[in-house]
Amino acid sequence: MNELNGYDVEDLQPGMSAAFSKTITEADIILFAGASGDNNAIHINEEFAKTTPFGGRIAHGFLTASTISAAIANRLPGPGTVYISQGMNFLAPVRPGDTVQATVTVKDIVPERARVTLRTVCTVGDTVVVEGEAIVKVTSAARRLAKAS
Amino acid sequence: MNELNGYDVEDLQPGMSAAFSKTITEADIILFAGASGDNNAIHINEEFAKTTPFGGRIAHGFLTASTISAAIANRLPGPGTVYISQGMNFLAPVRPGDTVQATVTVKDIVPERARVTLRTVCTVGDTVVVEGEAIVKVTSAARRLAKAS
Repeated sequence: MNELNGYDVEDLQPGMSAAFSKTITEADIILFAGASGDNNAIHINEEFAKTTPFGGRIAHGFLTASTISAAIANRLPGPGTVYISQGMNFLAPVRPGDTVQATVTVKDIVPERARVTLRTVCTVGDTVVVEGEAIVKVTSAARRLAKAS
Repeated sequence: MNELNGYDVEDLQPGMSAAFSKTITEADIILFAGASGDNNAIHINEEFAKTTPFGGRIAHGFLTASTISAAIANRLPGPGTVYISQGMNFLAPVRPGDTVQATVTVKDIVPERARVTLRTVCTVGDTVVVEGEAIVKVTSAARRLAKAS
């Protein structure tokens, strides 16, 4: 582990997994609309959203997927991780009050570059709402030792 | 155009482009930390962030990239668009006070499926900070006509 309590590349093995869960509230959707600039009617106008196939407001896909960022930054690999890329497929809508669980699983490790590929899946109950893959750069105990010596 | 003033698939041509710009403020970073659950020290703790190679707090990559969602939902293809997927590579840090411009450009169109691939690039001044590709489903004037008849 690094000094921030995040995993070093030497600590990681394919198959290691961690999760972060968060209820997506009406307040989160409003805050996200303001922070992103995406104030599309489907997210903030219930009267309009009722007339769509969704039948009511839905969360921004990016808001739902941002729980992946939380799972990676807070849990696995945790603090010290630098995001390189993220791909995401939006599979099903998330509604205000739904609890999203973001699960990240180590898929592949390139030790000499301290790079890790993670499978990233967001679920609401049994429904997969977002799935994809992240590549991150993590800290390395070997590099810390080399620098210190 | 559809009834929401968004583009139908019939209106789109490869090369069409639109942009959305937003200054990423300290408030946005705090709001995003709350909405996403990602309260990593690099985003919210200036004293810690000063000790890192970044030299101070940086915005969440997902927050920067969420301006793409705004450009797509508000501008091109605009209201009525449904997000299918987004890939993003995080290339450079964004700091509080930086103004991010998200530019989306039509790359490829599959008319019979009403699917559009967009190139998505976020810049701060001349620096590309996020780049990637989105796939979206758009409305179709032909389908509306077919339904109405």
